[in-house]
Amino acid sequence: MTRDTMDAAATAEHEAALAAALEAGAAVLRGGGSALDAVTAAVAALEDDPHFNAGRGAVFTYHGTNELDAAVMDGATRAAGAVAGITHTKNPVRLARAVMEHGPHVFLSGAGAEDFARDHGVEQVDPDWFATPERWRQLEEMKSKSLGWFDADLKYGTVGAVAVDGEGHVAAATSTGGLTGKRWGRIGDSPLIGAGTYADDRAGAVSCTGSGEQFIRAGVAHEICARIRLAGESAQAAADAVLAEVGAMGGVGGVIVATPAGDTAIAFTTPGMFRGRADYSGVSEVAIFGVH
Amino acid sequence: MTRDTMDAAATAEHEAALAAALEAGAAVLRGGGSALDAVTAAVAALEDDPHFNAGRGAVFTYHGTNELDAAVMDGATRAAGAVAGITHTKNPVRLARAVMEHGPHVFLSGAGAEDFARDHGVEQVDPDWFATPERWRQLEEMKSKSLGWFDADLKYGTVGAVAVDGEGHVAAATSTGGLTGKRWGRIGDSPLIGAGTYADDRAGAVSCTGSGEQFIRAGVAHEICARIRLAGESAQAAADAVLAEVGAMGGVGGVIVATPAGDTAIAFTTPGMFRGRADYSGVSEVAIFGVH
Repeated sequence: MTRDTMDAAATAEHEAALAAALEAGAAVLRGGGSALDAVTAAVAALEDDPHFNAGRGAVFTYHGTNELDAAVMDGATRAAGAVAGITHTKNPVRLARAVMEHGPHVFLSGAGAEDFARDHGVEQVDPDWFATPERWRQLEEMKSKSLGWFDADLKYGTVGAVAVDGEGHVAAATSTGGLTGKRWGRIGDSPLIGAGTYADDRAGAVSCTGSGEQFIRAGVAHEICARIRLAGESAQAAADAVLAEVGAMGGVGGVIVATPAGDTAIAFTTPGMFRGRADYSGVSEVAIFGVH
Repeated sequence: MTRDTMDAAATAEHEAALAAALEAGAAVLRGGGSALDAVTAAVAALEDDPHFNAGRGAVFTYHGTNELDAAVMDGATRAAGAVAGITHTKNPVRLARAVMEHGPHVFLSGAGAEDFARDHGVEQVDPDWFATPERWRQLEEMKSKSLGWFDADLKYGTVGAVAVDGEGHVAAATSTGGLTGKRWGRIGDSPLIGAGTYADDRAGAVSCTGSGEQFIRAGVAHEICARIRLAGESAQAAADAVLAEVGAMGGVGGVIVATPAGDTAIAFTTPGMFRGRADYSGVSEVAIFGVH
Protein backbone atom coordinates (compact mmCIF):
# COMPACT_ATOMS: atom_id res chain seq x y z
CA MET A 1 0.00 0.00 0.00
CA THR A 2 1.79 3.12 -1.23
CA ARG A 3 0.75 6.42 -2.76
CA ASP A 4 1.80 4.99 -6.12
CA THR A 5 -0.52 2.01 -6.02
CA MET A 6 -3.64 3.69 -4.60
CA ASP A 7 -5.51 6.19 -6.76
CA ALA A 8 -7.39 9.26 -5.53
CA ALA A 9 -10.81 7.59 -5.76
CA ALA A 10 -9.71 4.56 -3.72
CA THR A 11 -8.01 6.83 -1.20
CA ALA A 12 -11.16 8.90 -0.75
CA GLU A 13 -13.30 5.77 -0.45
CA HIS A 14 -11.08 4.26 2.26
CA GLU A 15 -10.87 7.55 4.13
CA ALA A 16 -14.67 7.79 4.17
CA ALA A 17 -14.94 4.23 5.49
CA LEU A 18 -12.37 4.98 8.20
CA ALA A 19 -14.19 8.19 9.17
CA ALA A 20 -17.47 6.29 9.53
CA ALA A 21 -15.93 3.68 11.83
CA LEU A 22 -14.16 6.38 13.84
CA GLU A 23 -17.47 8.19 14.27
CA ALA A 24 -19.18 4.97 15.38
CA GLY A 25 -16.71 4.74 18.25
CA ALA A 26 -16.55 8.47 19.00
CA ALA A 27 -20.34 8.70 19.21
CA VAL A 28 -20.35 6.10 22.00
CA LEU A 29 -17.83 8.12 24.00
CA ARG A 30 -19.60 11.46 23.39
CA GLY A 31 -22.75 9.83 24.74
CA GLY A 32 -20.96 8.90 27.95
CA GLY A 33 -20.42 5.27 26.94
CA SER A 34 -17.50 3.10 27.95
CA ALA A 35 -14.21 2.58 26.14
CA LEU A 36 -15.25 -1.07 25.81
CA ASP A 37 -18.47 -0.14 23.99
CA ALA A 38 -16.59 2.36 21.82
CA VAL A 39 -13.98 -0.10 20.55
CA THR A 40 -16.65 -2.75 19.97
CA ALA A 41 -18.73 -0.30 17.91
CA ALA A 42 -15.75 0.92 15.87
CA VAL A 43 -14.49 -2.58 15.11
CA ALA A 44 -17.99 -3.85 14.25
CA ALA A 45 -18.30 -0.98 11.74
CA LEU A 46 -14.96 -1.93 10.19
CA GLU A 47 -16.06 -5.59 10.04
CA ASP A 48 -19.24 -4.63 8.20
CA ASP A 49 -17.36 -2.53 5.66
CA PRO A 50 -15.96 -4.59 2.75
CA HIS A 51 -12.88 -2.36 2.39
CA PHE A 52 -11.15 -4.00 5.33
CA ASN A 53 -9.85 -7.50 6.01
CA ALA A 54 -12.29 -8.39 8.79
CA GLY A 55 -15.89 -9.56 8.73
CA ARG A 56 -17.35 -8.74 5.32
CA GLY A 57 -14.45 -8.37 2.90
CA ALA A 58 -12.14 -10.72 4.79
CA VAL A 59 -9.43 -12.45 2.78
CA PHE A 60 -9.84 -16.07 1.69
CA THR A 61 -8.00 -19.07 3.06
CA TYR A 62 -6.12 -21.46 0.79
CA HIS A 63 -9.25 -23.60 0.64
CA GLY A 64 -11.45 -20.68 -0.43
CA THR A 65 -13.21 -20.05 2.87
CA ASN A 66 -13.29 -17.01 5.15
CA GLU A 67 -12.08 -17.81 8.68
CA LEU A 68 -12.20 -14.92 11.08
CA ASP A 69 -10.44 -14.10 14.35
CA ALA A 70 -11.19 -11.36 16.90
CA ALA A 71 -10.47 -10.26 20.45
CA VAL A 72 -11.59 -7.64 22.92
CA MET A 73 -10.15 -6.65 26.31
CA ASP A 74 -11.31 -4.35 29.09
CA GLY A 75 -8.46 -2.51 30.79
CA ALA A 76 -10.49 -1.87 33.96
CA THR A 77 -10.80 -5.56 34.86
CA ARG A 78 -8.45 -7.17 32.35
CA ALA A 79 -11.40 -9.33 31.37
CA ALA A 80 -10.92 -10.55 27.81
CA GLY A 81 -12.69 -12.54 25.12
CA ALA A 82 -11.34 -13.96 21.88
CA VAL A 83 -12.40 -16.22 19.02
CA ALA A 84 -10.60 -17.92 16.13
CA GLY A 85 -11.69 -19.74 12.99
CA ILE A 86 -15.14 -18.13 12.81
CA THR A 87 -17.16 -18.85 9.64
CA HIS A 88 -20.79 -17.93 10.41
CA THR A 89 -20.83 -15.08 12.94
CA LYS A 90 -21.45 -11.70 11.31
CA ASN A 91 -19.37 -9.70 13.79
CA PRO A 92 -16.57 -11.72 15.35
CA VAL A 93 -15.81 -8.84 17.73
CA ARG A 94 -19.34 -9.11 19.16
CA LEU A 95 -18.81 -12.83 19.68
CA ALA A 96 -15.50 -12.09 21.46
CA ARG A 97 -17.43 -9.65 23.65
CA ALA A 98 -20.08 -12.31 24.42
CA VAL A 99 -17.32 -14.80 25.32
CA MET A 100 -15.86 -12.24 27.69
CA GLU A 101 -19.16 -11.35 29.32
CA HIS A 102 -21.19 -14.54 29.27
CA GLY A 103 -18.82 -17.51 29.18
CA PRO A 104 -16.43 -19.16 31.62
CA HIS A 105 -13.52 -19.04 29.15
CA VAL A 106 -11.43 -16.40 27.38
CA PHE A 107 -10.66 -18.04 24.04
CA LEU A 108 -12.99 -20.19 21.91
CA SER A 109 -12.27 -21.63 18.46
CA GLY A 110 -13.86 -23.12 15.37
CA ALA A 111 -17.25 -24.81 15.24
CA GLY A 112 -17.42 -24.88 19.04
CA ALA A 113 -17.12 -21.10 19.21
CA GLU A 114 -20.11 -20.81 16.90
CA ASP A 115 -22.13 -23.22 19.03
CA PHE A 116 -21.47 -20.70 21.80
CA ALA A 117 -22.53 -17.86 19.46
CA ARG A 118 -25.85 -19.55 18.70
CA ASP A 119 -26.41 -20.39 22.37
CA HIS A 120 -25.97 -16.70 23.19
CA GLY A 121 -27.93 -15.18 20.32
CA VAL A 122 -24.98 -13.64 18.49
CA GLU A 123 -26.07 -12.90 14.89
CA GLN A 124 -25.25 -15.64 12.39
CA VAL A 125 -24.96 -15.25 8.61
CA ASP A 126 -24.41 -17.44 5.60
CA PRO A 127 -20.66 -17.66 4.87
CA ASP A 128 -21.33 -15.88 1.54
CA TRP A 129 -21.86 -12.71 3.57
CA PHE A 130 -18.10 -12.40 4.06
CA ALA A 131 -17.05 -13.10 0.45
CA THR A 132 -16.18 -10.31 -1.99
CA PRO A 133 -14.91 -10.59 -5.60
CA GLU A 134 -11.80 -8.51 -4.89
CA ARG A 135 -10.63 -10.85 -2.13
CA TRP A 136 -11.26 -13.86 -4.39
CA ARG A 137 -9.15 -12.19 -7.07
CA GLN A 138 -6.35 -11.74 -4.50
CA LEU A 139 -6.46 -15.44 -3.62
CA GLU A 140 -6.27 -16.39 -7.30
CA GLU A 141 -3.38 -13.96 -7.78
CA MET A 142 -1.54 -15.37 -4.80
CA LYS A 143 -1.93 -18.92 -6.06
CA SER A 144 -1.09 -18.15 -9.70
CA LYS A 145 2.04 -16.23 -8.81
CA SER A 146 3.02 -18.47 -5.90
CA LEU A 147 3.25 -15.39 -3.74
CA GLY A 148 4.23 -15.85 -0.12
CA TRP A 149 1.85 -14.98 2.69
CA PHE A 150 3.94 -12.17 3.98
CA ASP A 151 4.69 -10.59 0.62
CA ALA A 152 1.20 -10.45 -0.70
CA ASP A 153 -0.96 -9.44 2.12
CA LEU A 154 0.32 -7.00 4.59
CA LYS A 155 -1.48 -4.33 2.63
CA TYR A 156 -4.80 -5.94 3.50
CA GLY A 157 -4.77 -5.35 7.18
CA THR A 158 -6.42 -6.40 10.28
CA VAL A 159 -8.69 -3.82 11.93
CA GLY A 160 -8.54 -2.61 15.50
CA ALA A 161 -9.52 0.13 17.89
CA VAL A 162 -8.33 1.47 21.25
CA ALA A 163 -10.10 3.98 23.44
CA VAL A 164 -10.02 5.74 26.79
CA ASP A 165 -13.30 6.88 28.31
CA GLY A 166 -14.35 9.61 30.70
CA GLU A 167 -13.70 7.32 33.69
CA GLY A 168 -10.10 6.77 32.57
CA HIS A 169 -10.70 3.17 31.56
CA VAL A 170 -9.07 1.83 28.42
CA ALA A 171 -10.13 -0.95 26.05
CA ALA A 172 -8.84 -2.61 22.90
CA ALA A 173 -10.45 -4.67 20.14
CA THR A 174 -9.01 -6.34 17.04
CA SER A 175 -10.58 -8.33 14.19
CA THR A 176 -9.15 -9.96 11.08
CA GLY A 177 -9.55 -12.44 8.27
CA GLY A 178 -5.85 -13.25 8.67
CA LEU A 179 -3.64 -13.86 5.65
CA THR A 180 -4.81 -14.55 2.10
CA GLY A 181 -4.22 -18.23 1.40
CA LYS A 182 -3.62 -19.14 5.06
CA ARG A 183 -3.59 -22.91 5.72
CA TRP A 184 -3.47 -25.49 8.47
CA GLY A 185 -5.85 -23.64 10.78
CA ARG A 186 -3.30 -20.86 11.21
CA ILE A 187 -4.11 -18.42 14.03
CA GLY A 188 -2.30 -15.08 13.92
CA ASP A 189 -1.65 -12.52 16.63
CA SER A 190 -4.99 -10.67 16.46
CA PRO A 191 -7.05 -12.91 18.79
CA LEU A 192 -4.14 -13.71 21.10
CA ILE A 193 -4.40 -11.69 24.30
CA GLY A 194 -0.95 -10.14 24.82
CA ALA A 195 0.15 -10.52 21.19
CA GLY A 196 -2.23 -8.54 18.95
CA THR A 197 -4.58 -7.20 21.64
CA TYR A 198 -4.12 -6.08 25.26
CA ALA A 199 -5.65 -3.56 27.66
CA ASP A 200 -4.63 -2.70 31.20
CA ASP A 201 -5.65 0.46 33.06
CA ARG A 202 -2.20 0.47 34.69
CA ALA A 203 -0.60 1.07 31.27
CA GLY A 204 -2.80 1.37 28.20
CA ALA A 205 -4.74 -0.37 25.45
CA VAL A 206 -3.01 -1.73 22.36
CA SER A 207 -4.23 -3.18 19.05
CA CYS A 208 -1.83 -4.47 16.38
CA THR A 209 -1.66 -5.26 12.68
CA GLY A 210 1.23 -6.75 10.74
CA SER A 211 3.23 -9.91 10.27
CA GLY A 212 1.47 -11.81 13.02
CA GLU A 213 4.10 -14.45 13.67
CA GLN A 214 6.70 -11.92 14.81
CA PHE A 215 4.04 -10.08 16.80
CA ILE A 216 3.27 -13.32 18.66
CA ARG A 217 6.95 -14.06 19.33
CA ALA A 218 7.56 -10.53 20.68
CA GLY A 219 4.26 -10.45 22.62
CA VAL A 220 3.82 -6.98 21.18
CA ALA A 221 0.64 -5.71 22.88
CA HIS A 222 1.64 -6.94 26.34
CA GLU A 223 5.24 -5.81 25.85
CA ILE A 224 4.14 -2.25 25.05
CA CYS A 225 2.06 -2.24 28.25
CA ALA A 226 4.96 -3.75 30.23
CA ARG A 227 7.35 -1.04 29.02
CA ILE A 228 4.90 1.71 29.97
CA ARG A 229 4.20 0.14 33.37
CA LEU A 230 7.59 -1.30 34.40
CA ALA A 231 10.07 0.94 32.53
CA GLY A 232 8.14 4.22 32.62
CA GLU A 233 8.24 4.69 28.86
CA SER A 234 5.73 6.88 27.03
CA ALA A 235 3.19 5.13 24.83
CA GLN A 236 4.95 6.39 21.70
CA ALA A 237 8.44 5.36 22.90
CA ALA A 238 7.18 1.92 23.88
CA ALA A 239 5.38 1.45 20.56
CA ASP A 240 8.43 2.52 18.57
CA ALA A 241 10.79 0.30 20.60
CA VAL A 242 8.64 -2.80 20.24
CA LEU A 243 8.14 -2.30 16.49
CA ALA A 244 11.94 -2.02 16.20
CA GLU A 245 12.18 -5.35 18.03
CA VAL A 246 9.65 -6.87 15.61
CA GLY A 247 11.76 -5.44 12.78
CA ALA A 248 14.86 -7.16 14.13
CA MET A 249 12.90 -10.43 13.88
CA GLY A 250 12.09 -9.66 10.24
CA GLY A 251 8.55 -8.43 10.82
CA VAL A 252 6.68 -5.25 9.94
CA GLY A 253 3.36 -3.78 11.00
CA GLY A 254 1.68 -1.17 13.09
CA VAL A 255 0.17 -0.51 16.49
CA ILE A 256 -2.28 1.93 18.05
CA VAL A 257 -2.12 2.76 21.76
CA ALA A 258 -4.30 4.77 24.16
CA THR A 259 -3.47 5.35 27.83
CA PRO A 260 -5.75 6.12 30.78
CA ALA A 261 -4.23 9.64 30.90
CA GLY A 262 -5.43 10.24 27.35
CA ASP A 263 -2.14 9.88 25.52
CA THR A 264 -2.31 8.12 22.17
CA ALA A 265 0.39 6.67 19.97
CA ILE A 266 0.33 5.43 16.40
CA ALA A 267 3.37 3.67 15.00
CA PHE A 268 3.97 1.60 11.87
CA THR A 269 6.87 0.25 9.86
CA THR A 270 4.87 -0.29 6.65
CA PRO A 271 4.61 2.41 3.95
CA GLY A 272 1.09 3.19 5.11
CA MET A 273 -1.55 2.24 7.65
CA PHE A 274 -5.26 3.06 7.52
CA ARG A 275 -5.86 4.97 10.73
CA GLY A 276 -7.93 7.60 12.50
CA ARG A 277 -8.05 9.44 15.78
CA ALA A 278 -10.79 11.42 17.53
CA ASP A 279 -11.03 13.12 20.91
CA TYR A 280 -13.43 15.07 23.13
CA SER A 281 -12.05 18.42 21.92
CA GLY A 282 -13.45 17.79 18.45
CA VAL A 283 -10.34 16.42 16.76
CA SER A 284 -11.32 13.78 14.21
CA GLU A 285 -8.76 12.83 11.59
CA VAL A 286 -8.04 9.91 9.30
CA ALA A 287 -4.92 9.11 7.31
CA ILE A 288 -3.41 6.34 5.19
CA PHE A 289 0.21 7.18 4.29
CA GLY A 290 3.14 8.94 5.91
CA VAL A 291 4.53 8.71 9.39
CA HIS A 292 2.91 9.52 12.70
CA MET B 1 -4.43 -32.76 45.15
CA THR B 2 -3.46 -32.85 48.81
CA ARG B 3 -1.59 -35.22 51.06
CA ASP B 4 -4.97 -36.36 52.35
CA THR B 5 -6.34 -37.41 48.97
CA MET B 6 -3.25 -39.11 47.53
CA ASP B 7 -2.08 -42.39 49.07
CA ALA B 8 1.51 -43.58 49.35
CA ALA B 9 1.28 -45.90 46.36
CA ALA B 10 -0.09 -43.19 44.08
CA THR B 11 2.52 -40.75 45.37
CA ALA B 12 5.34 -43.18 44.61
CA GLU B 13 3.93 -43.92 41.17
CA HIS B 14 3.71 -40.25 40.22
CA GLU B 15 7.17 -39.52 41.62
CA ALA B 16 8.61 -42.32 39.48
CA ALA B 17 6.87 -40.96 36.39
CA LEU B 18 8.21 -37.47 37.14
CA ALA B 19 11.72 -38.80 37.68
CA ALA B 20 11.64 -40.59 34.32
CA ALA B 21 10.59 -37.45 32.46
CA LEU B 22 13.17 -35.38 34.33
CA GLU B 23 15.84 -37.87 33.35
CA ALA B 24 14.71 -37.77 29.69
CA GLY B 25 15.45 -34.05 29.67
CA ALA B 26 18.58 -34.20 31.83
CA ALA B 27 20.11 -36.88 29.62
CA VAL B 28 19.87 -34.55 26.63
CA LEU B 29 21.71 -31.80 28.50
CA ARG B 30 24.38 -34.16 29.90
CA GLY B 31 25.02 -35.27 26.32
CA GLY B 32 25.68 -31.68 25.28
CA GLY B 33 22.24 -31.22 23.71
CA SER B 34 20.29 -27.99 23.58
CA ALA B 35 17.73 -26.67 26.05
CA LEU B 36 15.22 -26.90 23.21
CA ASP B 37 15.86 -30.62 22.75
CA ALA B 38 15.78 -31.17 26.51
CA VAL B 39 12.37 -29.58 27.06
CA THR B 40 10.96 -31.37 24.03
CA ALA B 41 12.19 -34.74 25.35
CA ALA B 42 10.90 -34.13 28.88
CA VAL B 43 7.47 -33.00 27.71
CA ALA B 44 7.17 -35.85 25.20
CA ALA B 45 7.89 -38.29 28.06
CA LEU B 46 5.16 -36.66 30.16
CA GLU B 47 2.76 -36.83 27.20
CA ASP B 48 3.40 -40.56 26.79
CA ASP B 49 2.81 -41.25 30.48
CA PRO B 50 -0.89 -41.70 31.33
CA HIS B 51 -0.48 -40.15 34.80
CA PHE B 52 -0.50 -36.63 33.39
CA ASN B 53 -3.08 -34.53 31.57
CA ALA B 54 -1.27 -34.32 28.23
CA GLY B 55 -0.99 -36.76 25.32
CA ARG B 56 -1.94 -40.20 26.61
CA GLY B 57 -4.06 -39.73 29.71
CA ALA B 58 -5.42 -36.34 28.67
CA VAL B 59 -8.77 -35.32 30.11
CA PHE B 60 -11.94 -35.60 28.03
CA THR B 61 -13.93 -32.75 26.52
CA TYR B 62 -17.64 -32.38 27.16
CA HIS B 63 -18.27 -34.33 23.97
CA GLY B 64 -16.05 -37.23 25.06
CA THR B 65 -13.04 -36.49 22.87
CA ASN B 66 -9.43 -35.68 23.73
CA GLU B 67 -8.32 -32.34 22.27
CA LEU B 68 -4.73 -31.45 22.95
CA ASP B 69 -2.75 -28.20 22.99
CA ALA B 70 1.02 -27.64 23.14
CA ALA B 71 3.72 -25.03 22.60
CA VAL B 72 7.48 -24.78 22.48
CA MET B 73 9.75 -21.73 22.40
CA ASP B 74 13.48 -21.22 21.89
CA GLY B 75 14.90 -18.39 23.98
CA ALA B 76 17.92 -17.95 21.69
CA THR B 77 15.86 -16.84 18.71
CA ARG B 78 12.41 -16.45 20.24
CA ALA B 79 11.23 -18.80 17.53
CA ALA B 80 8.04 -20.52 18.68
CA GLY B 81 5.57 -23.17 17.60
CA ALA B 82 2.15 -23.99 19.01
CA VAL B 83 -0.87 -26.16 18.25
CA ALA B 84 -4.43 -26.39 19.58
CA GLY B 85 -7.28 -28.86 19.23
CA ILE B 86 -5.08 -31.83 18.30
CA THR B 87 -6.83 -35.22 18.12
CA HIS B 88 -4.50 -37.58 16.19
CA THR B 89 -0.90 -36.52 16.83
CA LYS B 90 0.81 -38.72 19.41
CA ASN B 91 3.08 -36.00 20.79
CA PRO B 92 1.60 -32.52 20.41
CA VAL B 93 4.89 -30.99 21.62
CA ARG B 94 6.70 -32.59 18.68
CA LEU B 95 4.11 -31.11 16.32
CA ALA B 96 4.62 -27.69 17.95
CA ARG B 97 8.35 -28.16 17.35
CA ALA B 98 7.74 -29.07 13.68
CA VAL B 99 5.54 -25.98 13.27
CA MET B 100 8.35 -23.88 14.71
CA GLU B 101 11.07 -25.39 12.56
CA HIS B 102 9.36 -26.28 9.28
CA GLY B 103 6.36 -24.00 8.81
CA PRO B 104 5.81 -20.32 8.02
CA HIS B 105 3.48 -19.83 10.99
CA VAL B 106 3.67 -19.99 14.79
CA PHE B 107 0.23 -21.26 15.75
CA LEU B 108 -1.87 -23.92 13.97
CA SER B 109 -5.20 -25.36 15.07
CA GLY B 110 -7.61 -28.23 14.61
CA ALA B 111 -7.82 -30.46 11.55
CA GLY B 112 -5.55 -28.10 9.61
CA ALA B 113 -2.78 -28.52 12.17
CA GLU B 114 -2.95 -32.27 11.67
CA ASP B 115 -2.80 -31.88 7.90
CA PHE B 116 0.49 -30.11 8.63
CA ALA B 117 1.53 -32.97 10.94
CA ARG B 118 0.92 -35.56 8.22
CA ASP B 119 2.69 -33.41 5.61
CA HIS B 120 5.72 -33.30 7.89
CA GLY B 121 5.77 -36.90 9.05
CA VAL B 122 4.83 -36.24 12.68
CA GLU B 123 3.59 -39.52 14.21
CA GLN B 124 -0.18 -40.02 14.09
CA VAL B 125 -2.24 -42.33 16.29
CA ASP B 126 -5.83 -43.44 16.61
CA PRO B 127 -7.65 -41.12 19.04
CA ASP B 128 -8.11 -44.14 21.35
CA TRP B 129 -4.41 -43.84 22.16
CA PHE B 130 -5.12 -40.84 24.38
CA ALA B 131 -8.13 -42.28 26.23
CA THR B 132 -7.83 -43.79 29.71
CA PRO B 133 -10.61 -45.15 31.98
CA GLU B 134 -9.67 -42.84 34.86
CA ARG B 135 -10.14 -39.71 32.75
CA TRP B 136 -13.46 -41.04 31.47
CA ARG B 137 -14.55 -41.57 35.06
CA GLN B 138 -13.60 -37.95 35.82
CA LEU B 139 -15.75 -36.69 32.94
CA GLU B 140 -18.70 -38.75 34.16
CA GLU B 141 -18.17 -37.45 37.68
CA MET B 142 -18.03 -33.87 36.47
CA LYS B 143 -21.26 -34.26 34.51
CA SER B 144 -23.14 -36.16 37.22
CA LYS B 145 -22.23 -33.68 39.92
CA SER B 146 -22.47 -30.62 37.66
CA LEU B 147 -19.01 -29.67 38.81
CA GLY B 148 -17.51 -26.49 37.40
CA TRP B 149 -14.40 -26.58 35.25
CA PHE B 150 -12.30 -24.76 37.73
CA ASP B 151 -13.39 -26.70 40.77
CA ALA B 152 -12.93 -30.16 39.43
CA ASP B 153 -9.81 -30.11 37.44
CA LEU B 154 -6.97 -28.05 38.63
CA LYS B 155 -5.58 -31.18 40.21
CA TYR B 156 -5.13 -32.73 36.78
CA GLY B 157 -2.49 -30.45 35.45
CA THR B 158 -0.86 -29.45 32.31
CA VAL B 159 2.76 -30.57 31.87
CA GLY B 160 5.73 -28.39 31.07
CA ALA B 161 9.49 -28.09 31.14
CA VAL B 162 12.07 -25.31 31.14
CA ALA B 163 15.82 -25.69 30.68
CA VAL B 164 19.07 -23.80 30.30
CA ASP B 165 21.89 -25.45 28.36
CA GLY B 166 25.67 -25.20 28.38
CA GLU B 167 25.56 -22.33 25.89
CA GLY B 168 23.31 -20.31 28.20
CA HIS B 169 20.25 -20.67 25.98
CA VAL B 170 16.86 -21.26 27.56
CA ALA B 171 13.76 -23.02 26.23
CA ALA B 172 10.24 -23.79 27.41
CA ALA B 173 7.61 -26.35 26.40
CA THR B 174 4.07 -26.95 27.63
CA SER B 175 1.43 -29.57 26.75
CA THR B 176 -2.09 -30.21 27.99
CA GLY B 177 -5.44 -31.83 27.48
CA GLY B 178 -7.01 -28.72 28.98
CA LEU B 179 -9.99 -28.92 31.30
CA THR B 180 -12.24 -31.95 31.83
CA GLY B 181 -15.52 -31.23 30.09
CA LYS B 182 -14.21 -28.23 28.14
CA ARG B 183 -16.58 -27.02 25.40
CA TRP B 184 -16.88 -24.62 22.51
CA GLY B 185 -13.35 -25.23 21.20
CA ARG B 186 -11.92 -23.66 24.35
CA ILE B 187 -8.18 -22.92 24.12
CA GLY B 188 -6.39 -22.32 27.42
CA ASP B 189 -3.11 -20.61 28.20
CA SER B 190 -0.77 -23.53 27.49
CA PRO B 191 -0.34 -23.07 23.71
CA LEU B 192 -0.50 -19.28 23.84
CA ILE B 193 2.97 -17.80 23.50
CA GLY B 194 3.29 -15.24 26.32
CA ALA B 195 0.49 -16.72 28.43
CA GLY B 196 1.38 -20.33 29.34
CA THR B 197 4.73 -20.56 27.56
CA TYR B 198 7.57 -18.09 26.86
CA ALA B 199 11.35 -18.17 26.45
CA ASP B 200 13.75 -15.28 25.95
CA ASP B 201 17.50 -15.46 26.53
CA ARG B 202 17.35 -11.87 27.84
CA ALA B 203 15.23 -13.06 30.78
CA GLY B 204 14.33 -16.72 31.12
CA ALA B 205 12.07 -19.57 30.12
CA VAL B 206 8.64 -20.05 31.71
CA SER B 207 6.01 -22.80 31.60
CA CYS B 208 2.70 -22.52 33.44
CA THR B 209 -0.16 -24.64 34.77
CA GLY B 210 -3.34 -23.49 36.44
CA SER B 211 -6.58 -21.68 35.79
CA GLY B 212 -5.78 -20.80 32.21
CA GLU B 213 -8.18 -17.94 31.77
CA GLN B 214 -6.52 -15.79 34.43
CA PHE B 215 -3.09 -16.82 33.10
CA ILE B 216 -4.11 -15.50 29.66
CA ARG B 217 -5.46 -12.25 31.06
CA ALA B 218 -2.26 -11.62 33.08
CA GLY B 219 0.04 -12.77 30.25
CA VAL B 220 1.87 -14.75 32.93
CA ALA B 221 4.86 -16.22 31.06
CA HIS B 222 5.69 -12.99 29.23
CA GLU B 223 5.03 -10.91 32.35
CA ILE B 224 7.53 -12.96 34.38
CA CYS B 225 10.12 -12.41 31.64
CA ALA B 226 9.26 -8.68 31.45
CA ARG B 227 9.73 -8.27 35.22
CA ILE B 228 13.11 -9.99 35.08
CA ARG B 229 14.23 -7.97 32.05
CA LEU B 230 12.67 -4.53 32.67
CA ALA B 231 12.37 -4.40 36.48
CA GLY B 232 15.47 -6.40 37.42
CA GLU B 233 13.54 -8.88 39.55
CA SER B 234 14.87 -12.34 40.33
CA ALA B 235 13.12 -15.29 38.71
CA GLN B 236 11.59 -16.27 42.07
CA ALA B 237 10.42 -12.74 42.90
CA ALA B 238 8.90 -12.33 39.45
CA ALA B 239 7.16 -15.72 39.64
CA ASP B 240 5.75 -15.00 43.10
CA ALA B 241 4.57 -11.51 42.11
CA VAL B 242 2.79 -12.69 38.97
CA LEU B 243 1.08 -15.58 40.76
CA ALA B 244 -0.13 -13.04 43.34
CA GLU B 245 -1.56 -11.01 40.46
CA VAL B 246 -3.30 -14.13 39.11
CA GLY B 247 -4.62 -14.72 42.62
CA ALA B 248 -6.10 -11.21 42.72
CA MET B 249 -8.01 -12.14 39.54
CA GLY B 250 -9.33 -15.27 41.26
CA GLY B 251 -6.92 -17.74 39.67
CA VAL B 252 -4.51 -20.31 41.04
CA GLY B 253 -1.72 -22.35 39.52
CA GLY B 254 2.00 -22.76 39.24
CA VAL B 255 5.01 -21.78 37.16
CA ILE B 256 8.52 -23.05 36.56
CA VAL B 257 11.29 -20.69 35.45
CA ALA B 258 14.91 -21.13 34.32
CA THR B 259 17.25 -18.25 33.47
CA PRO B 260 20.34 -18.15 31.22
CA ALA B 261 22.48 -17.68 34.35
CA GLY B 262 21.20 -20.99 35.70
CA ASP B 263 18.74 -19.70 38.28
CA THR B 264 15.52 -21.63 38.61
CA ALA B 265 12.27 -20.81 40.32
CA ILE B 266 9.25 -22.93 41.17
CA ALA B 267 6.14 -21.25 42.50
CA PHE B 268 2.56 -22.43 42.98
CA THR B 269 -0.58 -21.36 44.78
CA THR B 270 -2.25 -24.79 44.73
CA PRO B 271 -1.81 -27.28 47.60
CA GLY B 272 0.63 -29.26 45.47
CA MET B 273 2.31 -29.35 42.08
CA PHE B 274 4.05 -32.32 40.46
CA ARG B 275 7.57 -31.05 39.84
CA GLY B 276 11.22 -31.95 39.47
CA ARG B 277 14.58 -30.28 39.07
CA ALA B 278 17.98 -31.55 37.89
CA ASP B 279 21.31 -29.85 37.26
CA TYR B 280 24.86 -30.57 36.07
CA SER B 281 26.12 -31.00 39.62
CA GLY B 282 24.06 -34.15 40.03
CA VAL B 283 21.02 -32.70 41.77
CA SER B 284 17.89 -34.56 40.69
CA GLU B 285 14.79 -34.19 42.82
CA VAL B 286 11.06 -34.58 42.43
CA ALA B 287 8.23 -33.43 44.69
CA ILE B 288 4.47 -33.14 44.80
CA PHE B 289 3.34 -31.24 47.91
CA GLY B 290 4.65 -28.39 50.05
CA VAL B 291 6.09 -25.05 49.11
CA HIS B 292 9.17 -24.22 47.10
